[in-house]
Amino acid sequence: MTDSTSMTDSKSMTDSKSEIGELVGRWVAAIQARDLEAVVADHTDDIVMFDVPPPYGGVRGIDEYRDSWLAFFEFIAGGAFFDIVDLDITASDTVAYAYALLRCGTAIQLTAKPAVRLRLTLGLRKQDGRWQVAHEHHSFPLS
Amino acid sequence: MTDSTSMTDSKSMTDSKSEIGELVGRWVAAIQARDLEAVVADHTDDIVMFDVPPPYGGVRGIDEYRDSWLAFFEFIAGGAFFDIVDLDITASDTVAYAYALLRCGTAIQLTAKPAVRLRLTLGLRKQDGRWQVAHEHHSFPLS
Repeated sequence: MTDSTSMTDSKSMTDSKSEIGELVGRWVAAIQARDLEAVVADHTDDIVMFDVPPPYGGVRGIDEYRDSWLAFFEFIAGGAFFDIVDLDITASDTVAYAYALLRCGTAIQLTAKPAVRLRLTLGLRKQDGRWQVAHEHHSFPLS
Repeated sequence: MTDSTSMTDSKSMTDSKSEIGELVGRWVAAIQARDLEAVVADHTDDIVMFDVPPPYGGVRGIDEYRDSWLAFFEFIAGGAFFDIVDLDITASDTVAYAYALLRCGTAIQLTAKPAVRLRLTLGLRKQDGRWQVAHEHHSFPLS
C-alpha cells in the first residue's frame, strides 16, 4: 500500500472527499438551475478559471468568474445538458484536486457526437473552515 | 490572513512548492529534449491525462501516458515551442495542484496568434516520499 492510499483511507481524508463531492454536486445543480449566487458560493475571491472559450489568460477573480456564467446559462436555458458522468477526488486536509468528465451539450450535439466529453479539473483549498474552489479548467478535446 | 495563506507561509508548504516547481521545470526540459524516460519519471502509475486531442475519456495509466508523447515529440522536433510563461502552485504536505499558461506552437502559429496560450493543470500526490503527478489537463481555448 502506498503512502497516498494510506492517507486516502484515513477518516479526515474520507471526510474531505465527501465534503468536496457534495460541493461539486451543489455546484452542478446550481448551474443546471441557473442559480448564479449558488454557482459562486463555494469559490475563492482569487479563483482562476481556464474556460472553454477565451480569454487566453484565464478568467481571474470572483467577479469575472460570476460574469462568465451568463452566456452558459443561455445555453442551459435552451435545453443543454451539464451532467457529470465520472468524478475523481484527491484530498489532504487543506489542499485537494478533482477531475471529471461531463455530458455537456444540446440534445442535437450529444446525438451527433455521443462520446464527446467536457473535461473538468478543480483545484480546492480549505479556507475559513470550509472547502472552496480556487481553480477550474474546462475544455473539450480538439478533434 | 486566511487559513490558506498561513499554510502557504509555513516551511513545509514552501518546501513542497519549491520541489514541485523544480519537478515542473525538469518535465518541461525533458519535453523540449524529447527525453521520454525523463518526461514520465515523476508520474504515478495511475496517471489520468486530459490531452489536447482525444481520447474522450482521457489517457489512462503510465503506459498510455508514455505513448501519448510520441506524436508531440515530432511536433517539437519540427521546431515547436513549449515554454511556461506563468506557473502557480498550491500545496499541502501530501496533495497539491498547479496551473500554468504556456507558449506552445510553431513559430508560424505563434506569429499568427501571439496571445494564444496552452492551458495546463496538474494534480500531484506525495507518494513514496516524493512528489508525483497523478493528473494532467492540457487544452487550448475554443475560438
